[in-house]
Amino acid sequence: MGTLKRILVGRPLASTQAGEQKLTRWKGLALLSSDALSSTAYGTEQIILALYLVSAAAFWHSLEIAAVVVVLLIALTASYRQIIHAYPHGGGAYVVTSENMGRTWGLVAAGSLLIDYMLTVAVSVSAGAEAITSAIPSLYGHEAAIACALIVVLAIVNLRGARESASVLVTPVFFFIAMMAVMIVAGLVQIITGQVPFNATSAIGTAVPGVTIFVLLRAFSSGSTSLTGVEAISNAVPSFKAPSARNAAATLTIMAVILGVFFAGVTFINYWYGIIPEHEVTLLSQIAAAVFGGNTTILFYLFQLATALILAVAANTGFSAFPQLSYNLARDKYMPHMFLARGDRLGYSNGILTLAAGAIVLIVVFHGIEVLIGQWSSQDTGGLTSLLIPLYAIGVFVPFTLAQASMVLRWKRLGETRWWLKAIPNAVGALISVAVVLVMIGLRFPSIWPYFLIMPVVVLFFRAIHRHYEAVRNQLRLPEDCAPTHYNGNTVVVLVSNVTRVDVRAVDYARSIGDEVRAFHVVIDGDGKAEEEIRDEFDATFPDIPLTIVRSQFRSIVAPALRHIDDVATEERARNRTVTVLVPQFITAKPWQQILHNQTSLRLRYLLNQRDRLVVATYTYRLND
Amino acid sequence: MGTLKRILVGRPLASTQAGEQKLTRWKGLALLSSDALSSTAYGTEQIILALYLVSAAAFWHSLEIAAVVVVLLIALTASYRQIIHAYPHGGGAYVVTSENMGRTWGLVAAGSLLIDYMLTVAVSVSAGAEAITSAIPSLYGHEAAIACALIVVLAIVNLRGARESASVLVTPVFFFIAMMAVMIVAGLVQIITGQVPFNATSAIGTAVPGVTIFVLLRAFSSGSTSLTGVEAISNAVPSFKAPSARNAAATLTIMAVILGVFFAGVTFINYWYGIIPEHEVTLLSQIAAAVFGGNTTILFYLFQLATALILAVAANTGFSAFPQLSYNLARDKYMPHMFLARGDRLGYSNGILTLAAGAIVLIVVFHGIEVLIGQWSSQDTGGLTSLLIPLYAIGVFVPFTLAQASMVLRWKRLGETRWWLKAIPNAVGALISVAVVLVMIGLRFPSIWPYFLIMPVVVLFFRAIHRHYEAVRNQLRLPEDCAPTHYNGNTVVVLVSNVTRVDVRAVDYARSIGDEVRAFHVVIDGDGKAEEEIRDEFDATFPDIPLTIVRSQFRSIVAPALRHIDDVATEERARNRTVTVLVPQFITAKPWQQILHNQTSLRLRYLLNQRDRLVVATYTYRLND
Repeated sequence: MGTLKRILVGRPLASTQAGEQKLTRWKGLALLSSDALSSTAYGTEQIILALYLVSAAAFWHSLEIAAVVVVLLIALTASYRQIIHAYPHGGGAYVVTSENMGRTWGLVAAGSLLIDYMLTVAVSVSAGAEAITSAIPSLYGHEAAIACALIVVLAIVNLRGARESASVLVTPVFFFIAMMAVMIVAGLVQIITGQVPFNATSAIGTAVPGVTIFVLLRAFSSGSTSLTGVEAISNAVPSFKAPSARNAAATLTIMAVILGVFFAGVTFINYWYGIIPEHEVTLLSQIAAAVFGGNTTILFYLFQLATALILAVAANTGFSAFPQLSYNLARDKYMPHMFLARGDRLGYSNGILTLAAGAIVLIVVFHGIEVLIGQWSSQDTGGLTSLLIPLYAIGVFVPFTLAQASMVLRWKRLGETRWWLKAIPNAVGALISVAVVLVMIGLRFPSIWPYFLIMPVVVLFFRAIHRHYEAVRNQLRLPEDCAPTHYNGNTVVVLVSNVTRVDVRAVDYARSIGDEVRAFHVVIDGDGKAEEEIRDEFDATFPDIPLTIVRSQFRSIVAPALRHIDDVATEERARNRTVTVLVPQFITAKPWQQILHNQTSLRLRYLLNQRDRLVVATYTYRLND
Repeated sequence: MGTLKRILVGRPLASTQAGEQKLTRWKGLALLSSDALSSTAYGTEQIILALYLVSAAAFWHSLEIAAVVVVLLIALTASYRQIIHAYPHGGGAYVVTSENMGRTWGLVAAGSLLIDYMLTVAVSVSAGAEAITSAIPSLYGHEAAIACALIVVLAIVNLRGARESASVLVTPVFFFIAMMAVMIVAGLVQIITGQVPFNATSAIGTAVPGVTIFVLLRAFSSGSTSLTGVEAISNAVPSFKAPSARNAAATLTIMAVILGVFFAGVTFINYWYGIIPEHEVTLLSQIAAAVFGGNTTILFYLFQLATALILAVAANTGFSAFPQLSYNLARDKYMPHMFLARGDRLGYSNGILTLAAGAIVLIVVFHGIEVLIGQWSSQDTGGLTSLLIPLYAIGVFVPFTLAQASMVLRWKRLGETRWWLKAIPNAVGALISVAVVLVMIGLRFPSIWPYFLIMPVVVLFFRAIHRHYEAVRNQLRLPEDCAPTHYNGNTVVVLVSNVTRVDVRAVDYARSIGDEVRAFHVVIDGDGKAEEEIRDEFDATFPDIPLTIVRSQFRSIVAPALRHIDDVATEERARNRTVTVLVPQFITAKPWQQILHNQTSLRLRYLLNQRDRLVVATYTYRLND
């Protein structure tokens, strides 16, 4: 067990080895943009699938929708640049909202984000797994297993320490940026040089029966998932090199430009090429196959590899954000203390493990749902990703809304002249975000209702934990006058089994700690012979120690022993004496042998440990053979 | 948990409520013959399936084989009547063999029987499940699940106390005897009155190509499984009314006659009617359908019900025999002590649970094997029962052989004049039994090899357990001169977390048991501020108690704490003082809250409990909220 852990996680690091490496703009871009950039792997597909429910002829609307998404991106970018400058110490939605809208809304934002990071991981590895099976069709059908395996690998990498791998993560991001750029440029060149004729399913402006405002809103809300991850940089401002706020804001702008170009480019090429979504491969891989001249070309494989890699790296964003946020919540006593502890490699191990477990549960549950839907209807679910994405989106846009509304309130509170001017980008961002949330509630409720079930539970949990920690603090606080209690003495009650070497040693020990030693023995109700035997033998060995024999009517040692001990404790406490229960036990030389002995003492000690102000002591005797 | 147990198992019974109800011949027949009689549910089928591997024309040989099986039955009955008289206190194969052939062979017999009782349960409930699915075809394919459910029900009934259900068990046995008698008589009447023409697959004496001596021996060894369970009465002689040996012997004779008639009758009717085994229904249910005029008649359903019930009851034989045998082995220190303990309802709960678990494992494993065979080949496995039966048979016939060979040795040892005359039935029984064993080894090794893998392991386990218990006894025995050790005093080492109410109380307690109290605190390596704070606060509260601050480089509390405690222990022992480690802990008001607190102390206490002669004491403080 220990060895396995060493191999997987590595040797423990001393606390003094902690320390931070500050990020340049480019390294920051690589580390913090993978979540957002990887969204282009599925953003366009979500729009197209929503339109395809009406007809392939409706695809030209994807251009309109993409334009609105880009507007939203610009507003969000402007808004988050302000957050970066306003909260240079890290302005996650939890901090910003708690400060401006109160703790409850802050906890809603935090709870949304925690669940969302699990979804980030689940969605990214699922999409990564789908990229893999699109390239290697023989793996089709095993997406869920591949996704879970990827999560395990990511968890191990992060338990080893993300810092080590930071430089490793840079490569996939730039590789993806490069491949995506090559693909878009190649596609556009082919279009401009006329190598690819205009092949769209319908011309722009074609009236398509069935396309209602609801269809378009639904498609827009699906497409807005391309913007998930935009907030990542604002959480990490302190990690940037000085001047950190300026560097972070610049990085955010660079990222937004790349994201906007990629998203718009993919959507346009998809429209021009007239690609129809297929069941077993992702839309992006169809586009790449079309541009690179088939799905067996080397460029196509490189492109798929880049997509799979960036999705894996995007999942990694969750692995740095979730433990950090749960640390912040634990510090504020809204989550268990255990999320404060650093593991062997200085990562917040409990956060990493919780995230991995949650993401695996999500994948297993949604894979189950996918299989069930597949069995009961012939409807195409669009794979695991499409099932997870609506939940992911609502979980992102709620904190988006809260954080930006908070910024508006903040500007107002600070009350500078013309504060409303500064509040404009935040207000626009908040309004479009809340619009996405409302559209999703109105049109996609069947996919997102679990969010409204889980969130109140999560917030109630945060509150209950907080209440408990406060109560403990009050109970443990020393009173003003803290005079020590002087006891009249200590009575030791020894549970003897038979008169063996262990019992003799235990009684000798008991004499050294108590001015009064008593023994007791539990006999199973019988003919009384066993009772007499033990008494004779005990009295011969310990003439000075009183032995009480407790009879057990129901063959249980534990219940009568507890009754006897409670009686003694009451009596001795009345005499202002402390009581120690001494349970002798032996430890076998080999672990398997322990099963050959009664486990009664374990249960007895567990139950005694539930009793207030009682001291349970174990006298251990090791056997040699 | 406790409530569920009460509902399922019932209220605990006092030990004084034990006591035995002695068996009359008829009650004894009902309670102890179900295993043997139920074998007629599958005995003929096993012969027919073995012959069917050659051709349906070979079925007439089943009459020959049945004749040899009946001869074996007579020899075994005579032999076991002798065992009953020779071991009136219960002559299981374990006792008889241990006494006459030495402990090792006795353990082989015991091990075989233990595994065999698991197989009895597995085979009986599987056959019962097959009887159910033969009557209700829509359940076909769920035999394994039904069988496991039956085991769980049987385990609960037996945990409640088999005595209560003893009278309930009488009904199915006589119901089965009645239905079987009706079926055989009806079949014979139809044959005699000529209502059913001679429809056999071939006339007696027809030469069938492919029928070799090996085919016949194999069919014989399969058919001899009808005799499993014959030994049950000999194990239970003391349960009979006086004169117990005579009553038991008479019961055995009655049972053998019924068994012989049923087995011969079923085999003959099957031959005359010319029934060919089918895949989804048992042979016996085909016979019953033919005799009763179709598988929708009320008589057919009653017959199937009777078969299913007696198979369930037969499984129950295992539930009385296994716990008794494991009790005997535990008493002789060859099995863990836990098999000696009586449960709430006076049954040997651990034996019952072990048996149920073992039988379920067998069914799951063999169901898996069945499914695999079904996937890889089109070969008909004959269902779960047919896969389990060869193992079951070898496990029965090995102790049969040993017990009877032991009886021969016993007669020789007693050395009466003409002892060999008395030894004749035992010798015949032993020879036919050993023949069955040899035939099975020679012809069915691919089905029974696990027996030869498991048996040595089981016997080695028995031996290892015995060796351990003996070693413990020697180590715990008091030396001749047992002078008490006088210590110079006791040092208490208190692990303090912060200076809270719990710590203050713990130190007060420590003062009452130790003439020297020391405290220590583990700090996670940091800037030293925490260290200074705790020291100041502690010194202000306990000016007279020395505090050691232990630094932890790797953020673990446990390892540095252990090192410190070991150092103190070594030092104090050199001064002839005892050492108590006091770990204060608080118990939360609600169990779920416990997870909000560090579990470090649990792990620390566990590791300290592994150390020799160290006393670990827990000071418990209950929180109110």
